Amino acid sequence: MAQRPLDVLNRALGSQVLVGLKGGREFRGKLAGFDVHVNLVLEDAEEIQGTEASKRYGTLVIRGDSVVYISPAE
Amino acid sequence: MAQRPLDVLNRALGSQVLVGLKGGREFRGKLAGFDVHVNLVLEDAEEIQGTEASKRYGTLVIRGDSVVYISPAE
Amino acid sequence: MAQRPLDVLNRALGSQVLVGLKGGREFRGKLAGFDVHVNLVLEDAEEIQGTEASKRYGTLVIRGDSVVYISPAE
Amino acid sequence: MAQRPLDVLNRALGSQVLVGLKGGREFRGKLAGFDVHVNLVLEDAEEIQGTEASKRYGTLVIRGDSVVYISPAE
Amino acid sequence: MAQRPLDVLNRALGSQVLVGLKGGREFRGKLAGFDVHVNLVLEDAEEIQGTEASKRYGTLVIRGDSVVYISPAE
Amino acid sequence: MAQRPLDVLNRALGSQVLVGLKGGREFRGKLAGFDVHVNLVLEDAEEIQGTEASKRYGTLVIRGDSVVYISPAE
Amino acid sequence: MAQRPLDVLNRALGSQVLVGLKGGREFRGKLAGFDVHVNLVLEDAEEIQGTEASKRYGTLVIRGDSVVYISPAE
Repeated sequence: MAQRPLDVLNRALGSQVLVGLKGGREFRGKLAGFDVHVNLVLEDAEEIQGTEASKRYGTLVIRGDSVVYISPAE
Repeated sequence: MAQRPLDVLNRALGSQVLVGLKGGREFRGKLAGFDVHVNLVLEDAEEIQGTEASKRYGTLVIRGDSVVYISPAE
Repeated sequence: MAQRPLDVLNRALGSQVLVGLKGGREFRGKLAGFDVHVNLVLEDAEEIQGTEASKRYGTLVIRGDSVVYISPAE
Repeated sequence: MAQRPLDVLNRALGSQVLVGLKGGREFRGKLAGFDVHVNLVLEDAEEIQGTEASKRYGTLVIRGDSVVYISPAE
Repeated sequence: MAQRPLDVLNRALGSQVLVGLKGGREFRGKLAGFDVHVNLVLEDAEEIQGTEASKRYGTLVIRGDSVVYISPAE
Repeated sequence: MAQRPLDVLNRALGSQVLVGLKGGREFRGKLAGFDVHVNLVLEDAEEIQGTEASKRYGTLVIRGDSVVYISPAE
Repeated sequence: MAQRPLDVLNRALGSQVLVGLKGGREFRGKLAGFDVHVNLVLEDAEEIQGTEASKRYGTLVIRGDSVVYISPAE
């Protein structure tokens, strides 16, 4: 059974996700919301460089236009 | 309960936000308004380099197309 | 009371504004008009490098697609 | 008989695909879903550098806007 | 009285304009036409480098998507 | 008699085409399908560097957004 | 009398045109067709570097999204 991309995001609500942006920056946090444009709300967000958290942001609204991928933690 | 991205911006009205733009520039100021395109109005805005304010702008209208993320202060 | 981005531009008509473009160029001039695409009309426009005017343009129509921010003088 | 691009993706559901992104990054994984924007869901996804897997992601939602090509394994 | 951007272009028909493109190239010529996408028709067009004409083009149709600014001669 | 771009693609179905992408990559293969967004399906596709095939892909779905030009073999 | 951009292209059908693309590449050929997206069909097309033909393509379909300017020969 095929999984629609927004359904995968819906199941990831409340879980940790890794978000890759255009230009290569990566953020990690709890997925607290999203909309059909793939605009995202992350809580307890932090930017990742390599495997290290480099900066903490609290709540972060990310515009979908900048998002390359979203990977839910398993 | 999921939080929609624009609801998060709505709750941030009147508070300090950090705004990251394409290309890496960051601005900080009081979120005075926004629209569905995520065009933003900041007051007492300043550009941030590292942790320092590098330039002050007063009121700043930022086009949503340039916005990567918005982080409300907590 | 929230301020809508286009309302801020409307109140700035006839006043000096600073306009930042993608790629980092900045222009200054009197805001003489705009439309919903944030296409702008500046009069007595000049390009700014650092704090110096580097080139004068008279009337300048700027496409909204290139605009990053607009800051009304106060 | 011409093959429509989305039909090719539909037949690839459940199979390994190679996905090339803007900027040159490549990912490989099982195509678990997609939508009309070519947003993709990959499972057991990994990033490829040359012919080596460089990073493993589990489930990966990739925004169609970043996708350059998709090649189903044969 | 506010001036709409397309009205400014309309008044410039038949006059010399300077056109700046994404990436920094500049063209000069007589504005012979335009449409709502800000696609432009220049006649006796030439590319400008610094203050010199570097190449002559005759008639030039420029796609609006590439246009950053248009400055009518005064 | 003018030829519409999509008609040219339609006549090229089943023939070899050369496809140039943003950033300069070129692919060659049999055009097996396309849609109105100029999303393409190539079969027996290979990437070309200079005049050499550098990598073989089998079937390749290319997003129209990345396509610069398509040249049917003659 | 103003000339609309697409009317200029229409009059250029069957004539040589020079086409400039994003990133600076230039192609020359006989304009055999176009559509409202400014997708173009060139025949006997060749890429130009400086004033030299560097590569010959036969028929070339160019996506409008990549086109910066089109200059009909006179």
